[in-house]
Amino acid sequence: MALSIAPTTENTTTEQLEAYLAAAQASFGTWAATSPAQRAGILDAVGDALDAAADQLVPVAMAETNLPEPRLRGELKRTTFQLRFFGELLRDGGYLDARIDHADAQWPMGAARPDLRRTRIPLGPVVVFAASNFPFAFSVAGGDSASALAAGNPVIVKAHHGHLELSRLTAQVVNEALAGAGAPDGLFQVVFGTEAGRTVLLDPRIKAAGFTGSIPGGRALMDLAVSRDEPIPFYGELGSNNPVFVTEQAASVRGEQIVADFIGSFTTSAGQLCTKPGTLFISRGSGLRPLLSEAALPAGAGLLNQRIREGYGQVLDQLSAHPGVEVLAQGGEPLGEQPSPTLLITGIDELLADPQALQAECFGPTALVVEYDSEQQLVAAAQTFEGQLTATIHGEEGDRVQELVAVLANKAGRVLWNQWPTGVSVTYAQQHGGPYPATTAVGTTSVGAAAIERFVRPVAYQNFPQHLLPAQLQDANPDSVPQLVNGQPRGR
Amino acid sequence: MALSIAPTTENTTTEQLEAYLAAAQASFGTWAATSPAQRAGILDAVGDALDAAADQLVPVAMAETNLPEPRLRGELKRTTFQLRFFGELLRDGGYLDARIDHADAQWPMGAARPDLRRTRIPLGPVVVFAASNFPFAFSVAGGDSASALAAGNPVIVKAHHGHLELSRLTAQVVNEALAGAGAPDGLFQVVFGTEAGRTVLLDPRIKAAGFTGSIPGGRALMDLAVSRDEPIPFYGELGSNNPVFVTEQAASVRGEQIVADFIGSFTTSAGQLCTKPGTLFISRGSGLRPLLSEAALPAGAGLLNQRIREGYGQVLDQLSAHPGVEVLAQGGEPLGEQPSPTLLITGIDELLADPQALQAECFGPTALVVEYDSEQQLVAAAQTFEGQLTATIHGEEGDRVQELVAVLANKAGRVLWNQWPTGVSVTYAQQHGGPYPATTAVGTTSVGAAAIERFVRPVAYQNFPQHLLPAQLQDANPDSVPQLVNGQPRGR
Repeated sequence: MALSIAPTTENTTTEQLEAYLAAAQASFGTWAATSPAQRAGILDAVGDALDAAADQLVPVAMAETNLPEPRLRGELKRTTFQLRFFGELLRDGGYLDARIDHADAQWPMGAARPDLRRTRIPLGPVVVFAASNFPFAFSVAGGDSASALAAGNPVIVKAHHGHLELSRLTAQVVNEALAGAGAPDGLFQVVFGTEAGRTVLLDPRIKAAGFTGSIPGGRALMDLAVSRDEPIPFYGELGSNNPVFVTEQAASVRGEQIVADFIGSFTTSAGQLCTKPGTLFISRGSGLRPLLSEAALPAGAGLLNQRIREGYGQVLDQLSAHPGVEVLAQGGEPLGEQPSPTLLITGIDELLADPQALQAECFGPTALVVEYDSEQQLVAAAQTFEGQLTATIHGEEGDRVQELVAVLANKAGRVLWNQWPTGVSVTYAQQHGGPYPATTAVGTTSVGAAAIERFVRPVAYQNFPQHLLPAQLQDANPDSVPQLVNGQPRGR
Repeated sequence: MALSIAPTTENTTTEQLEAYLAAAQASFGTWAATSPAQRAGILDAVGDALDAAADQLVPVAMAETNLPEPRLRGELKRTTFQLRFFGELLRDGGYLDARIDHADAQWPMGAARPDLRRTRIPLGPVVVFAASNFPFAFSVAGGDSASALAAGNPVIVKAHHGHLELSRLTAQVVNEALAGAGAPDGLFQVVFGTEAGRTVLLDPRIKAAGFTGSIPGGRALMDLAVSRDEPIPFYGELGSNNPVFVTEQAASVRGEQIVADFIGSFTTSAGQLCTKPGTLFISRGSGLRPLLSEAALPAGAGLLNQRIREGYGQVLDQLSAHPGVEVLAQGGEPLGEQPSPTLLITGIDELLADPQALQAECFGPTALVVEYDSEQQLVAAAQTFEGQLTATIHGEEGDRVQELVAVLANKAGRVLWNQWPTGVSVTYAQQHGGPYPATTAVGTTSVGAAAIERFVRPVAYQNFPQHLLPAQLQDANPDSVPQLVNGQPRGR
């Protein structure tokens, strides 16, 4: 049981914080001046060290989070893949967005165009608030840390209270690998305690923040970040309901498969995923209701920690007590030490009458089934949702879903067709962030190649001699990075 | 169409605002669904209409702003160029950042990669707060409006009180052109009055804001934007000092040219430019001081309006009264109805002792000359500056300025070599925004091609059939837009 483990890591003191912040600041110039290829090699070394430490780290993670071993081993593999993936992006250089405009006396603006060259540079020290539910992939060495480091920034991680010892051990592995690979001292630190996190966030040396967690927690920290004398970007990935819309045809063609996959998706990791499908729209006459009510739900599992179990219980109680909501299926003990999965059901009129209450995120193994009477109601239902990480349609060829797709694209960061939102792939085209409250910073993502764009900003160099330009802006282009020259991609 | 044209410049009533907001919201779906090429044609039509109305608009602008005719005609030309430039970007399609990842069962993350495709879509209705000092280029039909419209968003402009009649007339020309070109009703509106601007900014239908103006005004509006239940991005371009560093060699090789060009730059448009060089670092023994003190300063000119004249006078008084600051040169009447240009001078020790006071932006025809004793002091001086739009070095080959360039790149959005920061070109590689307080949203720009990126956000489509994908994400790529396929640029 996670809470029975005595913490071996104490809250970071004010003196230690000052030392960490000063060290992070001192390392910035050196780290920012390394070449992208150098940083890629160092990220590879960190990934290798974490892979090598799997047998040491995974048991600690199991003890602290209740998550099962295969899930944690898979998550660690994803984490080290992310480090290498950002290294690959560094070697490619496309993320630098190098643009070169040659001087042009005939520029049609009405005044001569000077020689202008633009690229992206790192921001400075970044604070990362680790997540409860991904002790590897969104924690100490997770995606926020990897992308911020890759971009050329020092990182201070605020450890999540739910897995303190794992955080300490992971930081030790990372720092040994960094030192062995020649990274500057002070580049990477982990701090402990809520107050330490606040202090770091408010320190003027910190230039951006990453966060994965709840809507209230994320909003409180965002409000701090933007209240500073120098407001800084706060990249928070918060809650999401992740609605799924099943058309009549899809239910009729492959209803059993949809039910089985839905149950697998909403119960995986005990439902503690930000992309868990929280609402399933089915046609009232489709036959999915009996399939769902008779399906074998998996056994209950311990949640991440006591605070999450309590929060889950509160939302489940509220949903269950809502007029018009019934229990459709549940395991033995929906609110015990190992909560069993629960399926609730209501009608579309009830949802449309009180969308805010019925779309609240229930962080655990619960989902709400909503019966609709006609597919024409789905667009109106979709419009009632706040910003989402994902939205999904299960349909068949010939379904008239164009309008629904357009509405969902305006609501979510990722729209899926005939797949399930859990199991987020790390790729070039992935987009995880959606409109608020799914994400605090519109247009950003914490997963996928574009995550690195959060931790850089553009600078233009006007009329500079070649030798004073960054390599990626030189005509010789020594690293063969993609360049946009006079508005056109330059052949590599 | 009657709805779209403000009949008067009186404060917009609550009822009118509601009608405008509803109309903007209603037009969003139609406008967002137009093809980029369609929107480009409509922007061209707006540019043509404004060019054709120059003889009607420029005299009104002259009367309302005190700016001279050639400047205003040039600014209008820039404004219509911007509209066509964003049209060119739409036809190119690179701004869509289309990325396609094919499904890959062997993806090294450890789990199969689904088919993922990512592009950018518009945000929704945008509010634009017009600037005092660019009645065309950063006002009703200026860069913020052009880039937000180009991206597919409806726009509501809050007119600047300094040129109300021009705002009304410009909106009329724009709306007639939009209607004639087939844009949806309600796409573009202008509102009047401070309270109207606040109301629009706080309305949940508004999804982003653009602003050009002062630090206190911009910060107050930013604080409102991020305090909303749904915080929205606030793209504010605020103040800047724009320091210029002259090396000993540069002063010795071309001191007279530097002095002449500096005076031209800080006095153009009566110094009322956000890129005005506000501080000039010169070597104490370089001979630039006598050249500056003996230079012929241009005659005084009326400032934009009474509020700006008062603010200018206050800051000039504070700077002049600061211990260690002397007047180096000035015209007849530094604080009259037509303030004469003023050059102040101090030493680098004085600047380092009280940087905040001596780096305050003085919005008008004043600049501060700072004498340094050794070039080694310039890095320390550069480090004392807050975030800037620009920073400039005048140097010669062989000058050891690498560290100074690196520090200035961390402080500014644009770094210049042997040119002057005023006269901002609109190009593919331009970057106008710098770190706060120069800009409220790190990494964004209100000038240049990247300005359009502020008003879009990415969406990923997972596992979609071709016919439900946006054109730019289809394998057939019917508009021949740039696509990144499996991480590599696809040949067009």
